[in-house]
Amino acid sequence: MKMVIIVRNDLQMGKGKIASQVAHAAVSLVLEIAQHEKVPFSDWLKEWLDEGQPKIVVKVNSEEELTQRINRARQEGLPTTLIHDAGRTQINPGTLTCGGIGPGPDHLIDKITGDLKLL
Amino acid sequence: MKMVIIVRNDLQMGKGKIASQVAHAAVSLVLEIAQHEKVPFSDWLKEWLDEGQPKIVVKVNSEEELTQRINRARQEGLPTTLIHDAGRTQINPGTLTCGGIGPGPDHLIDKITGDLKLL
Repeated sequence: MKMVIIVRNDLQMGKGKIASQVAHAAVSLVLEIAQHEKVPFSDWLKEWLDEGQPKIVVKVNSEEELTQRINRARQEGLPTTLIHDAGRTQINPGTLTCGGIGPGPDHLIDKITGDLKLL
Repeated sequence: MKMVIIVRNDLQMGKGKIASQVAHAAVSLVLEIAQHEKVPFSDWLKEWLDEGQPKIVVKVNSEEELTQRINRARQEGLPTTLIHDAGRTQINPGTLTCGGIGPGPDHLIDKITGDLKLL
């Protein structure tokens, strides 16, 4: 099991900003699943937590690339989230900064993000 | 309400690595509270989620500084977590990489981390 967070590298965010956006995505994915207990997502979440919650952070260079990957993941039946920044610092309010996929089985997630480079 | 994540800047982690460690801290804090429903932590968590889960990422330059801040936060009655890396990439297994405080009231958290610089 793993979770992959896709970050927009074209926004020139600082590393603290990136970290807070990625954390927002991870928390959103986990809480959404924990609150709705939907099969198989809740089983994937439990396994992922037992495995030490592995996360991979990768990058794309545009909003379009990000939304395309997240849409494909949703169509494949994976948990997804998109994070729009509140815009308190560095970038405009409502900017799409990153998206999260998972937790889910490695082979399903690799089909969507396996070719993306690590941030 | 806010959550503050304190990152060790002396480890020279890359920005993707930092983001995954910070996300680990945020998920751990949130799940620990969601699973135990302890007062006032669960009320703080609900308020923080309603406010858009604001997070601040700050830095320290040693393991000692990190553990001192987290210990003080725990003594003040705030939710805390310490993250030890699994060591799959970049750093040695078991290395303490970051710590999280909150979600909690701004004035309580500022007493502990208000003087630390943003990452």
